[in-house]
Amino acid sequence: MTGSVQERTSPAVRRLDPEDAQLALQKLQSVLKRQEVVETLAQRQHEGSDREDLLANLTHRRHEQEIRSIINNLHPADIAFILESLPENERQIVWQQVSDEYDADILLEIEDWARESLIKTMEPADLIAAAANMDADEIADLAPDLPPEVIAEVQKGLTESERAQLLEAMGYPEDSVGAIMDFDMVRVREDVSLEVVLRYLRRLQELPDHTDQIFVVDRDDRLLGTLSLTRMLVSDPETLVSDVMAADYLSLHPLDSDADAANAFERYDLVSAPVVDDYGRLIGRVTIDEVVDVLQEDSQEQE
Amino acid sequence: MTGSVQERTSPAVRRLDPEDAQLALQKLQSVLKRQEVVETLAQRQHEGSDREDLLANLTHRRHEQEIRSIINNLHPADIAFILESLPENERQIVWQQVSDEYDADILLEIEDWARESLIKTMEPADLIAAAANMDADEIADLAPDLPPEVIAEVQKGLTESERAQLLEAMGYPEDSVGAIMDFDMVRVREDVSLEVVLRYLRRLQELPDHTDQIFVVDRDDRLLGTLSLTRMLVSDPETLVSDVMAADYLSLHPLDSDADAANAFERYDLVSAPVVDDYGRLIGRVTIDEVVDVLQEDSQEQE
Repeated sequence: MTGSVQERTSPAVRRLDPEDAQLALQKLQSVLKRQEVVETLAQRQHEGSDREDLLANLTHRRHEQEIRSIINNLHPADIAFILESLPENERQIVWQQVSDEYDADILLEIEDWARESLIKTMEPADLIAAAANMDADEIADLAPDLPPEVIAEVQKGLTESERAQLLEAMGYPEDSVGAIMDFDMVRVREDVSLEVVLRYLRRLQELPDHTDQIFVVDRDDRLLGTLSLTRMLVSDPETLVSDVMAADYLSLHPLDSDADAANAFERYDLVSAPVVDDYGRLIGRVTIDEVVDVLQEDSQEQE
Repeated sequence: MTGSVQERTSPAVRRLDPEDAQLALQKLQSVLKRQEVVETLAQRQHEGSDREDLLANLTHRRHEQEIRSIINNLHPADIAFILESLPENERQIVWQQVSDEYDADILLEIEDWARESLIKTMEPADLIAAAANMDADEIADLAPDLPPEVIAEVQKGLTESERAQLLEAMGYPEDSVGAIMDFDMVRVREDVSLEVVLRYLRRLQELPDHTDQIFVVDRDDRLLGTLSLTRMLVSDPETLVSDVMAADYLSLHPLDSDADAANAFERYDLVSAPVVDDYGRLIGRVTIDEVVDVLQEDSQEQE
């Protein structure tokens, strides 16, 4: 998607590019092809000399090395795309070479049908390690595909509130808002100044993905309003939250349909929306990346 | 989408809700029906008394008033939805009652086929006033539907750089990134501290919609990196921009297809992306709301 000219002007910068993934896929297919030839040769020379076995082994290892260097430079979403594009046996060969640190992202990113085949070949210990990098709502998405002993082990590593979130997330029907919401919410009180909020945010070290607004709640966790990051950035730090928070916002109910939520995101151009229960209490949020997936699935169903 | 329970708990808060729009549509249809009956009666009593004419006039005005009070409480996107849902003649009746301040938003929001019929009945002066509230990329979207004298007048009100942006936006083919990009970019230098950036943002009073990142450029406007608002908010204000900006980001070219851009937004979960020219210079950005529209159009084309 980026031209080569741009890469010349600032060579240090790695840009995300789906075309890179396409190119990497072609390179991988060529390595896999070469490896297949080596294997065929090795099988034919059933009575091969030790030297030939050694050579075949070396070549095999060089190919693995090549696969690793192609794939582990990519964004996890690109690796997921590549794994989806390969036939089952080649997918397994490549998946063996993917760095462990990407396991969680890829399992969450990849299509359901391909995910099953990845999980099937993973050691329980690796699955547990991958799940340890996930949020409760992400574990809930994956849970139906995980072996019971892995889920049991993963649960042990959760805090009480994470365990409650996991149970909550698993309790909602498939096409509901509850099934696509996450629990990554930043909450503040309405009677503090923006300066206090800014100091609080700085202590968090990291904000959840797709945080375009934080939520203003009372002491019973009832949602009072939303405070957009951009509003916060341009306002005087002395201002009180209650003076700059938005009172007109869309809120979702966990049992709303995900298609209705997508419709609302589209109509009001939203990046995120709070999810509240029957008592007006904030229980989660939905973000645009989940909504885009809902839209894509709907359009694929129509194909 | 919000339950009535929530509205009871905090009645002052107006929440966005597509169901409200549906309800408003039903109310409007009932008013329009009543007005139709009044008109039929008035026509039949061709030789009606002055008193009857007066009554018919009063009723007519009361209906207009009713339409205004139903419609002008809604979000412009909801008004657009309602206008799309009505048959041509009723659409015109309701459009007459929409507050001028919503004209620009609605013209930009509404489907092309309905937009033409709205523009057809507008006075040039009202069209010019509406266009004065638009950015260059928005005027470009609308331009093919505007009478030449209106475009000439609108151009006069633009600054030189806005006029250049308008010409630029009109030069790209329909399904390209150039056609969906906007020019609402916040640019900073890499050798300043976050504190300086924060002070600069505060002076802007308002950030463009869907600003999740600002762009780091050199003095020739070449893109060096992107700085996410969340990263900025959690970092020490003393930090230099160059130390926290992201070097791995997706950049688009104005001649990339909008479908490829949508694919990239989906894969990398983006909210916005910079658009750079052949020389690596920042010329625009694409935001998720435009991408969602591209995805929706694609899925509608499949229907």
